Amino acid sequence: MSHLPIALDAMGGDNAPTDIVAGARVAAEEHGIPILLVGRPDELGDTGDLEVLPASEVIAMDADAGSSVRRMKDSSLVRAAEAVRDGNASAMISAGNTGATMASALLRMGRIKGVSRPAIATPIPRLEGSPTLLLDAGANADCTPEMLCQFARMGAVFARDRYGVEQPKVSLLSIGEEDNKGNALVKDAHKALAEEPWAELGATFVGNVEGRDLMTDEADVVVTDGFTGNVALKTLEGGMKTLIAGLFDAFGSSPEAVEASAALTPALEPLYRRFNPDTYGSAVLLGVNGLCMISHGSSSASAMTNALVTTAELLDTDVVEHLRAAITA
Amino acid sequence: MSHLPIALDAMGGDNAPTDIVAGARVAAEEHGIPILLVGRPDELGDTGDLEVLPASEVIAMDADAGSSVRRMKDSSLVRAAEAVRDGNASAMISAGNTGATMASALLRMGRIKGVSRPAIATPIPRLEGSPTLLLDAGANADCTPEMLCQFARMGAVFARDRYGVEQPKVSLLSIGEEDNKGNALVKDAHKALAEEPWAELGATFVGNVEGRDLMTDEADVVVTDGFTGNVALKTLEGGMKTLIAGLFDAFGSSPEAVEASAALTPALEPLYRRFNPDTYGSAVLLGVNGLCMISHGSSSASAMTNALVTTAELLDTDVVEHLRAAITA
Repeated sequence: MSHLPIALDAMGGDNAPTDIVAGARVAAEEHGIPILLVGRPDELGDTGDLEVLPASEVIAMDADAGSSVRRMKDSSLVRAAEAVRDGNASAMISAGNTGATMASALLRMGRIKGVSRPAIATPIPRLEGSPTLLLDAGANADCTPEMLCQFARMGAVFARDRYGVEQPKVSLLSIGEEDNKGNALVKDAHKALAEEPWAELGATFVGNVEGRDLMTDEADVVVTDGFTGNVALKTLEGGMKTLIAGLFDAFGSSPEAVEASAALTPALEPLYRRFNPDTYGSAVLLGVNGLCMISHGSSSASAMTNALVTTAELLDTDVVEHLRAAITA
Repeated sequence: MSHLPIALDAMGGDNAPTDIVAGARVAAEEHGIPILLVGRPDELGDTGDLEVLPASEVIAMDADAGSSVRRMKDSSLVRAAEAVRDGNASAMISAGNTGATMASALLRMGRIKGVSRPAIATPIPRLEGSPTLLLDAGANADCTPEMLCQFARMGAVFARDRYGVEQPKVSLLSIGEEDNKGNALVKDAHKALAEEPWAELGATFVGNVEGRDLMTDEADVVVTDGFTGNVALKTLEGGMKTLIAGLFDAFGSSPEAVEASAALTPALEPLYRRFNPDTYGSAVLLGVNGLCMISHGSSSASAMTNALVTTAELLDTDVVEHLRAAITA
């Protein structure tokens, strides 16, 4: 299906704009995806046949999100969000400042009618099969049970459209599997989630799961407040990074170890690929009036190509209309 | 230094009583640690010269904590806690039901004067050096800023006495390093923590840390509510387990991989030992009127020996008196 171009923030990310532009060119030239590069034209290098939307400002990775978006009206992020709002782009993608990406999308595109707060949904890779979708991964530090119910509905839609899970298993992150385990928010949210019309929504509520279930197939969607979700996500990333650093130390610890680990490389490659964020993909801001993909700050050119291909596939599924329907169901 | 015996719940844990008794005998016979085994005498097997305190009931690993402790007055856990309260034991250790261990200690020993709620402090291993102490790891699902301040004081004392950290770096778990990042509880707790007399307490408040810092030396003590702490801990355990399972799959994926991984075993052994809970040790319930160590349910005999040796060392430091002093400082 053909779409409006995808607005890509060419200035956002640790490797911007070089890798962003390189990834976009591959997506356009090899996958036929229409792309609108947003950024400073004279910094983008060779953009080939890509369309460019000029934007003179860049919101830094560590800038304060709210004030930057209000102040920098000609920033690549704000212009990308406006392109979606104005019907000049079908979706936006950024590997830049996450908070500013959210704020741009929220302020320029607005929310889906009925959505109280958009949430960041992040894929957590498993050893096999599609990832677990964790939301909210950091958009809302303080949540109500009603917000968690909306996150759950949106997560179920996204797991179906993005990963092809026919009847997504929706769960609530807690500190015990029993219904009455958790903090005050989680206890109330459990009751509210149990009363949602899951059959009608084409999903199942499987109750509470624990942190140790995030990388398993216990649930397809794990709902939590944005504080807990962000802590869990970063704890997982930190733990993986530490263990992998330890492995590399061991692999290099003697000539014998170096030789043995070289022989293991083909066997370890699939595991490395599976747990590499460049492969398992971007996060998404669910609940805004359009598609807003949030890529890892460290995204490589191939990660950007993947993100663009995924986004084009998502546009084919009409996910935003499905989200709209699920909120009012 | 000689102490009263350590009361050891012989019936608690996945491998109880066999491995518990075996670990206790090594601690007594090779390290000279006085031990009071608590449990059903006719199920304990050969206890050698160990003293036994008979207890006819066993609280199951998955039993409801509060009601079990109230009902089962002759359980090994309740009797172990009473032995500490009555001056017949210097500390208690259990690898059994964590909730029931906490409840027994709290109800029988009581709290240190001034402590609002005891907290579970859990060591998180790093690649090098002593572990990071995370608290509360699950005792209190809902917390106030004042509770987090007490946890911080107690954590600093424990990091000094247990790990020899002279000037512990105390931190608050959040979702950004800036002072104003976090949920409502964390924002208030940050202000309260910043006003504590850290110099007087022999520690430093280093502000917010994130989930990714748990396995690093950013902080020696990381304070959080028991819901977030438990989610973080279990997320880390689950992530490690998944990655290690993936590694073992890769190691066994071909004859060449099997051979290469066998050659790597000596290099990987120190890493395995460092991240094995049997090595880095038990959690501790801080804030009760005595020493209560909480071992992993899966504890092996050698883990129990380690736990007993550690506990004896802790008794030498007079940690409970130091906790008492820090609460009123």
